Amino acid sequence: MKKIAILKGDGIGPEIIDCAIEVMDKIQEVSKVDFEYSYGKIGGDAIDNFGDPYPKETEAICKSANAVLLGAVGGEKWDNIESEKRPEKGLLRLRKSLGVFANLRPCKIYDSLKDNSPLKPEYIKDVDILIVRELMGGIYFGNRGTVVEKGLKTAFDEERYNEEEIERIARYAFEMSLLRKQKVTLVDKANVMDSSKLWREVVKKVAEGYKEVALDFMYVDNAAMQLVRNPAYFDCILTNNIFGDILSDEASQISGSIGLLPSASLGEKMGLYEPIHGSAPDIAGKNLANPLATILSCALMLRYSFKMDYEAKIIERAVEDVLEEGFRTFDLDSKNYLGTREITREVVKRIK
Amino acid sequence: MKKIAILKGDGIGPEIIDCAIEVMDKIQEVSKVDFEYSYGKIGGDAIDNFGDPYPKETEAICKSANAVLLGAVGGEKWDNIESEKRPEKGLLRLRKSLGVFANLRPCKIYDSLKDNSPLKPEYIKDVDILIVRELMGGIYFGNRGTVVEKGLKTAFDEERYNEEEIERIARYAFEMSLLRKQKVTLVDKANVMDSSKLWREVVKKVAEGYKEVALDFMYVDNAAMQLVRNPAYFDCILTNNIFGDILSDEASQISGSIGLLPSASLGEKMGLYEPIHGSAPDIAGKNLANPLATILSCALMLRYSFKMDYEAKIIERAVEDVLEEGFRTFDLDSKNYLGTREITREVVKRIK
Ligand SMILES: CC(C)[C@H](C(=O)O)[C@@H](O)C(=O)O
Ligand SMILES: CC(C)[C@H](C(=O)O)[C@@H](O)C(=O)O
Repeated sequence: MKKIAILKGDGIGPEIIDCAIEVMDKIQEVSKVDFEYSYGKIGGDAIDNFGDPYPKETEAICKSANAVLLGAVGGEKWDNIESEKRPEKGLLRLRKSLGVFANLRPCKIYDSLKDNSPLKPEYIKDVDILIVRELMGGIYFGNRGTVVEKGLKTAFDEERYNEEEIERIARYAFEMSLLRKQKVTLVDKANVMDSSKLWREVVKKVAEGYKEVALDFMYVDNAAMQLVRNPAYFDCILTNNIFGDILSDEASQISGSIGLLPSASLGEKMGLYEPIHGSAPDIAGKNLANPLATILSCALMLRYSFKMDYEAKIIERAVEDVLEEGFRTFDLDSKNYLGTREITREVVKRIK
Repeated sequence: MKKIAILKGDGIGPEIIDCAIEVMDKIQEVSKVDFEYSYGKIGGDAIDNFGDPYPKETEAICKSANAVLLGAVGGEKWDNIESEKRPEKGLLRLRKSLGVFANLRPCKIYDSLKDNSPLKPEYIKDVDILIVRELMGGIYFGNRGTVVEKGLKTAFDEERYNEEEIERIARYAFEMSLLRKQKVTLVDKANVMDSSKLWREVVKKVAEGYKEVALDFMYVDNAAMQLVRNPAYFDCILTNNIFGDILSDEASQISGSIGLLPSASLGEKMGLYEPIHGSAPDIAGKNLANPLATILSCALMLRYSFKMDYEAKIIERAVEDVLEEGFRTFDLDSKNYLGTREITREVVKRIK
């Protein structure tokens, strides 16, 4: 019995999660595995119901599960709430409480969607990047505050990492790279930041245990540039929380298919899976959302949390087939598209 | 008499600066203005000569000038020096000592170079962005250190801004936007960082004095994405030191002409002008470097430090003409190009 906590969240969250469940149900059917779903509230939805973006009830549900599937959080409705109570804060607390320190954001070019990239075809040939972003430290969780200093309102946020935090995410990146092209690029700002220098030091040490992996270093400004100019250069990008946030969004656009990009956030035992796109309140409830990133996040869940690589591939293959046969969602082709539910049906049909 | 301190720096620095001086000499000739040049060392060149990337001698030369023209700093040779003595540190100290808090990085598409962008033509139509980056604060100048905590090596860097620092750069952005499309986008991470929240607060207040300017807000991850997906959205981007570093490099690639992008760093009375590209040691001394960004940086110097807008336009027009007539540098067309000196001669010829 595999227990999955399901957090639909806000905006298009509920409808894309419903689609993902249809796919998981079909997987149960064809592979004779048992999933048990339990449902919790998060983000704005949880604020409206419990006055807290990550209530204790939800935490309990997640902690008694083997994996968590998340839709999306946030929306204008909650934008003016004080920051400790905002939907995003719920997401950060969720990550922390599950201990998921490794955020994996694959960015690949779907052959059938090549033309969707803003980049010219010759620039995106062979692009297949895995961003390994540290998710439980850095400026997201460091000291912060607002004080009055020499009569002036002053605010600060601290980037902070210790060697243990760096080592565990570095190991992750090297392990992942073994399954890929054996290349890790550490992205940092070591010409300015002390924390970056510690990253370099620790990552070099970890690299000694992975002689077959090529390690190189790149400043974050240069990386933001190379992602546009020569994205095929990268295999695994290893980086801190905030740089990973920025670079993974940039990379997703380069792929031309942000509506298709899943993510996995992993810790010692728990996995959190979510699409990398947001809650898109403007199209919520209209059967226009692209459910494929969430469906592909289920594939990552099967692979990483349940070691069901075979079934993961079945889902990934089904999605690729649907795209290759020319089916499109609204974000990919606003003239000729299938609705959220209809494209899901096409995927489900192809799972056997 | 206009006094210009000239810091050639490392790599291609000396040769591109020599070209810029040829252009300035021609401007002296045609416009009867007098420039007085004085030369100082910076970066690796200064380390080799004085054991310090920004020696007192250089500081004195800069401070007695009306404006500073800089080539580029850095190179592998100095990469293993301890961080307080690295070439980059010289650059940061230079900025601080001149009090240049506003870094202006224009990013425009040259009609004749449209095809050089990695982005498809329909994505870069009408792109003309001015990035206004805060240059004297934030994580570049905050507290940092490495300590042992609970037995673990721990490093930290602090992002810190007070309302005065934010206000002065915000005013700059609004003033600049008045000369453009009257639109300012503040880029921050206000859903996570306290300093970003202070930026929003202060910038909103400054905006009240500029009713004709449209102000909006964007998270930095989204901005990194929109620069690829819809760069024409932006007019002025106002942001902190580190986000400005990342986004301006990304934007420069989008333009397809990083070898052409100048920058100005301005303070109460001093201006520092430099190309945004680096020192490119691999092509140094080969007459291959593109001098146009440095030449265009002189145009910015004329405009901002000497109020010689007419002469600035003469330079800009000369560069555009050279490009429109089909002349290219090595970075733009590695098959059919003019050398560093030869393209400069073409520019000089067109200044009358
Ligand atoms: C919503 C926000 C706090 C979050 C982040 O910055 O981590 C998001 O951008 C993401 O990347 O998952
Ligand atoms: C060399 C480095 C310290 C510098 C910076 O980060 O400011 C450079 O990248 C720049 O943008 O001028």
